[in-house]
Amino acid sequence: MRDTICAISTATGQGAMAIVRITGNEALLIASKVFSYKSGSRILENELSHTVHFGRIIDNNILIDEVMLSLFKSPGTYTGEDIVEITCHGSVFIQQKILHLLIKNGARLASPGEFTQRAYLNGKMDLSQAEAVSDLISSSTEAAHKIAMNQMRGGISNELALLRQELLQFISLIELELDFSEEDVEFADRTQLKSIVDKLIKLIDKLIGSFKLGNAIKNGIPVAIVGEPNVGKSTLLNAILGDEKAIVSDIAGTTRDAIEDTFVFNGITYRFIDTAGLRETSDVIESIGIERTYRKIEQASIILAMFDIKKTLQEIEHELTKLIDKTDGDKKIIVVLNKADNNEVCSYDFRDKAFATISISAKSYYNIDKLFDLLNSISGIEQLENNSVIVSNVRHLEALELSKQSLERAVLGMDLGVTHDFLAMDIREAIHYLAGITGEEITTDEVLGNIFGQFCIGK
Amino acid sequence: MRDTICAISTATGQGAMAIVRITGNEALLIASKVFSYKSGSRILENELSHTVHFGRIIDNNILIDEVMLSLFKSPGTYTGEDIVEITCHGSVFIQQKILHLLIKNGARLASPGEFTQRAYLNGKMDLSQAEAVSDLISSSTEAAHKIAMNQMRGGISNELALLRQELLQFISLIELELDFSEEDVEFADRTQLKSIVDKLIKLIDKLIGSFKLGNAIKNGIPVAIVGEPNVGKSTLLNAILGDEKAIVSDIAGTTRDAIEDTFVFNGITYRFIDTAGLRETSDVIESIGIERTYRKIEQASIILAMFDIKKTLQEIEHELTKLIDKTDGDKKIIVVLNKADNNEVCSYDFRDKAFATISISAKSYYNIDKLFDLLNSISGIEQLENNSVIVSNVRHLEALELSKQSLERAVLGMDLGVTHDFLAMDIREAIHYLAGITGEEITTDEVLGNIFGQFCIGK
Repeated sequence: MRDTICAISTATGQGAMAIVRITGNEALLIASKVFSYKSGSRILENELSHTVHFGRIIDNNILIDEVMLSLFKSPGTYTGEDIVEITCHGSVFIQQKILHLLIKNGARLASPGEFTQRAYLNGKMDLSQAEAVSDLISSSTEAAHKIAMNQMRGGISNELALLRQELLQFISLIELELDFSEEDVEFADRTQLKSIVDKLIKLIDKLIGSFKLGNAIKNGIPVAIVGEPNVGKSTLLNAILGDEKAIVSDIAGTTRDAIEDTFVFNGITYRFIDTAGLRETSDVIESIGIERTYRKIEQASIILAMFDIKKTLQEIEHELTKLIDKTDGDKKIIVVLNKADNNEVCSYDFRDKAFATISISAKSYYNIDKLFDLLNSISGIEQLENNSVIVSNVRHLEALELSKQSLERAVLGMDLGVTHDFLAMDIREAIHYLAGITGEEITTDEVLGNIFGQFCIGK
Repeated sequence: MRDTICAISTATGQGAMAIVRITGNEALLIASKVFSYKSGSRILENELSHTVHFGRIIDNNILIDEVMLSLFKSPGTYTGEDIVEITCHGSVFIQQKILHLLIKNGARLASPGEFTQRAYLNGKMDLSQAEAVSDLISSSTEAAHKIAMNQMRGGISNELALLRQELLQFISLIELELDFSEEDVEFADRTQLKSIVDKLIKLIDKLIGSFKLGNAIKNGIPVAIVGEPNVGKSTLLNAILGDEKAIVSDIAGTTRDAIEDTFVFNGITYRFIDTAGLRETSDVIESIGIERTYRKIEQASIILAMFDIKKTLQEIEHELTKLIDKTDGDKKIIVVLNKADNNEVCSYDFRDKAFATISISAKSYYNIDKLFDLLNSISGIEQLENNSVIVSNVRHLEALELSKQSLERAVLGMDLGVTHDFLAMDIREAIHYLAGITGEEITTDEVLGNIFGQFCIGK
């Protein structure tokens, strides 16, 4: 038995309308204490589920508002409990007044995400689906929306269910051996078992690998534009951002200092990292302020290495090599040969050093679209098209990595010929981590607190 | 026949949930194009009014969101037309996507206040009630909420209906005389008629008089604290504002420069006017910067004239007289004798010059509560208690004043013995202005545009 909670569920501040939401066993009882029908003497409890009623919220004979009250009866509701939604006029005063009135009549102010937490606890969705609700609400691009929606509809849950099923089959064989351990039989062919575990590791690896894209979509891909002064870095940035820059700057709540130059293309947010430090040096590598700039470049996952198209192949190769030496191999480098103002096509090719090479003119917008196609192909966004499952949650990533480690221990154990019980332990551990993602095994209050504490209130 | 309009009706930005609202003849048709039931093949048009349905918003085979759709069938709705409300997840992306999808399917983006404008045009409420909806949404104190709610429920409309009824009765007698004009009869006793018009003028005067309170409640009462340097003006302001100051300063969207010191007491907002100018002068009246300070004081409707309690009666009277001479008689002055740090009670009384006199200690908070009681009794807030009608709208005030002028012309006409038709014209004019308040006579698009243009979108 859980208490009844309430919260303002619409965005903070003044609007035309707002929703105050109540869920719990006493939702109807508490609502009926503050709500009275405009006319007639009907009883809220007797109304059908999924109906809307016009009436008044009155406190101490003072009319607070005329509202629409929607009621949803357990169990066919979001939380699995009775839900009442009061749609009122969107003044902050009225919203707060109704909230206080509900609390005065026995409801408790909901914690962040507590509605969705109840949906999870009442078996309406698993934990990864609940997490997707929060991701869905905060997703601001088409791609982020798609990943969150896929996860909310059970995309990851289904993938994990398949993995777990295979592991459970595996363990049932091992356990059969345990039952007959004194007879020293092997029901499961070790070679065959190993190939199953190897296959599962590959599947988990694929999910782990998808996190890079998932994270990029959720948080944007950091791109550094580096190069000598006057090579055209600012011009390129302006060519990319165009009028979009002003729009980004208008976002409420971001201060002028904190604004990053971001650009959304094909549903992916690119965050351009300011490498102003390079602007003051005459040589990319040999300046005193160089370390600070490199620390900045370290944050990038894509580097646009800009050169004047009039430089010699040797000059460019020399600087490119230095750049590669100073950065980790994780970064994708695009060599951008600027100032091809007469649409020159450069025959230089740095295939061995860089992901791609392109001639552009930042000034006349030549090949800027092609540059975006290149960024796009690096991002891996096309993976989204075939509805493959993308992991975008750090908690899931960690669980997958732990599960993978357990499976690798199992493989090692099989190679070393460890006993059944050790093998079973490793496999059980792998299952345990996977189950943690969907919350199918007992999840501690601390874990739940961490997950739902990041939600907004009212969801 | 009006087209179908749509808008996001909840507050701007990200929330747990948001409402996208549609009204018009094609509301159901357009909604059914973008909404599909989670299961089953039911038809939206066949559902009962005031019911809620779970389903999906799909665009080009891409799932935009899982939503609750509430439908309200004409004529028993807010606008009098069919209304559909889509309650979706509150990400900005989803809200915008659904809005665009509705527009793609034939709805038009609503102008500010257009839902309420339709409610007015379809006879669901009169114009003053429609205006109250906007006031209600923007009211941030209990008193402002109360006035707006009273107006929305027809408080002013009822009062005006009584006035108009009396005027119509009056005019019917006059017009009877017009019919028999050749026989030169007087059905209406002129003395009796004059007393009726006088009574109506008094009623209108009462409404006009209430505007001062109505405006104060809506916009706050401007209070100036004046006095010599070191008399304790800042200390008093801090004593009044306490921690409230920080809260006021936190309101989003107000820049540090534009912040006024405001304090809400008993549902009334007091706006304290900075009279820093006086701080640099050693004498209240005879300084060079004095004019600027007096221009500031002109904005106030209440003046707290602060003096050191240790000053002589003559000194205070001298300065008080100068202050009164320099300000118009419209301002209420409270003489505040500060530095009564040992709770001294001063026997000085400036009854003939000031509204009240009070000894306080801003430092030790002595009598600060009594000072608030004084402010409160000046504000006239107690008028709110007996549910009398308060005018808070400038448009209404102007109409009432014009109506009053017409009636005064009628009285003058009767005194001068003008003919029936002139008398009838004045009375008709008075009725016309009153009818304009509730919009019962034809209202121009320009007037409607001015009124509803100040609404938020989605209401």
